[in-house]
Amino acid sequence: MSAKETVEARKPTRVTSEEVAELAGVSRSAVSRTFTPGASVSAKTRDKVLSAASQLGYRPNALARSLIIRRTQLVGLVMAEWENPFYTDILRQFSERFQREGYQLLLMTSVTEADVDDAMRRLLQYQVDGLLVVSARPSPALARECAASNTPMVLMNRHSPDGMESSVTCDNAQVGRDIVQLLLQRRYRRLAIVRGDARVLVGVQRTSAMIEEMAGADNAKVVADVTGCLGYQAGRQAIADLWRSPDPPDAVVCSSDPTALGVLDGARLDLGIRVPDELAVIGLGDIPEASWASYRLSTVHLPVDEMIDLAANDLLKRLADDSIEPRHWVANARIVTRESIRSAPT
Amino acid sequence: MSAKETVEARKPTRVTSEEVAELAGVSRSAVSRTFTPGASVSAKTRDKVLSAASQLGYRPNALARSLIIRRTQLVGLVMAEWENPFYTDILRQFSERFQREGYQLLLMTSVTEADVDDAMRRLLQYQVDGLLVVSARPSPALARECAASNTPMVLMNRHSPDGMESSVTCDNAQVGRDIVQLLLQRRYRRLAIVRGDARVLVGVQRTSAMIEEMAGADNAKVVADVTGCLGYQAGRQAIADLWRSPDPPDAVVCSSDPTALGVLDGARLDLGIRVPDELAVIGLGDIPEASWASYRLSTVHLPVDEMIDLAANDLLKRLADDSIEPRHWVANARIVTRESIRSAPT
Repeated sequence: MSAKETVEARKPTRVTSEEVAELAGVSRSAVSRTFTPGASVSAKTRDKVLSAASQLGYRPNALARSLIIRRTQLVGLVMAEWENPFYTDILRQFSERFQREGYQLLLMTSVTEADVDDAMRRLLQYQVDGLLVVSARPSPALARECAASNTPMVLMNRHSPDGMESSVTCDNAQVGRDIVQLLLQRRYRRLAIVRGDARVLVGVQRTSAMIEEMAGADNAKVVADVTGCLGYQAGRQAIADLWRSPDPPDAVVCSSDPTALGVLDGARLDLGIRVPDELAVIGLGDIPEASWASYRLSTVHLPVDEMIDLAANDLLKRLADDSIEPRHWVANARIVTRESIRSAPT
Repeated sequence: MSAKETVEARKPTRVTSEEVAELAGVSRSAVSRTFTPGASVSAKTRDKVLSAASQLGYRPNALARSLIIRRTQLVGLVMAEWENPFYTDILRQFSERFQREGYQLLLMTSVTEADVDDAMRRLLQYQVDGLLVVSARPSPALARECAASNTPMVLMNRHSPDGMESSVTCDNAQVGRDIVQLLLQRRYRRLAIVRGDARVLVGVQRTSAMIEEMAGADNAKVVADVTGCLGYQAGRQAIADLWRSPDPPDAVVCSSDPTALGVLDGARLDLGIRVPDELAVIGLGDIPEASWASYRLSTVHLPVDEMIDLAANDLLKRLADDSIEPRHWVANARIVTRESIRSAPT
């Protein structure tokens, strides 16, 4: 179905403000004022207009207005992946926050890094006032275009190397170092890293930091760095493979909580491994399931709420005042220790 | 921050097609054709236009075009609650499907039944071509307005009593009857119903059917109908209360899987109840966690994918041809039996 065909198939039956004014017996300006927030209009006139508008099925045209005031009150949201359980939170919180501030979210989802430019151009054709981009980054050329046209942009989970966009990240390398220090302190020495797509930047940063930190410790090593492993079933299989290997781990650090919960179920229920005596399991995310009584998973609590606030505040400020420069914001994660690792030595 | 203030604070710097034409040394029509899908333009001219457009940060204006062709290619999506784990699936699948068909989703989330009309009016001001409304229903007056202005609408999880909108539901009463028949067959006789907001229509339908079906059975009764109980922690608490009551159940049917998983953990880990010998637990949704090795929960598999397909197909067809009448579609749920109920008697 092409746009052209659908246009021909549908009758343009939209009601004009003139028709509303005529039926209500008021001026066209009275109709316009009724539908402009904050404009002055008497209660009596307003009632007449609303009644006529409802009768005719009239609705004020936000688009026509936007062509005049050059503001659409639309914010484009580009979401580059869905595996992460926080994407619902991100979407929900952005949506509620921007609705409250009088904006609507226009959505492009399931975008890959390769086609993020296309997705953004599609949103830009709707003259969005600003852009939120989650887990992806536009090309420098497109970033320059947006900067040139005063369309502020905020990247989440990605750093802007040239500072043309604002960006919000959390300190992934620090998280990696903290995890390794915690494991060493609790007498684990043989680390397996289990993560998803090897190209995911935040995973690369965390992994590099863990490998470096392990290299600096005595009698400790990284026995495996498994990539392409994401989700419960993949985690359950991964621990079976790792446990059978010539060099099995005594600690598994996963790039997502569902993966870690799969490792935990695989270890305890399939393989009879004693957790945390024989094996430590650490996740990432601190999803509700991590704290459930059947799991009690140690994990990294990501500062998702803080990151969402930082991103929304930055964008709203720059929408209101285009003299404000883009900034880079860093939020801090923290490790939550539960029963999937040993207690601290006394 | 009001819309008025932000308008004043920002400079209108958007580039026009005339400026692109001038820099490229081509006609304005050549610029327009370059940005119209399917329009004829030579490769050489196209390159000149794209290069000039990129240099100036020009983007074609989908909104201006929409005022002429009276189509915005925008579809409004109203989401009335987020507790349901399927809302992410619904959002994702609608979004991908409509993007593929050349539409963008404009979002209103976390709407309550009380303010669904306001939310829809906000979307209608953007001249959306059609509307998807999940778990809410507009007033008859607003439904009439949309019908009068040829704006097709599909309700999901709600029936349209007057047939002005299309609607997609699943057969909730049948699900309720099937659950009771399964429990009776597996020799459970004392049913507790545990659900969320007592006003949720699909819950009311399922509950009424369960109560009726139990009333027709010998030596069987509904010992409790707990409302306002949704989610893991609430479920874990609910079974503690039910187990201490003078009339404890031998089967608990929950209105969501997280609630049922909380009941299961509370029963087995907090109270030492033997599941499924002493207690059956049944959820609703069949989320991934329900099949995890630590749980193996019996539950109702909702036909979410089928419902999404029915809703999307109906809306896309009516967007293309406004002579097609609204319809009511019913999808069928099925019960998935796992280890939280006894096996069938042999």
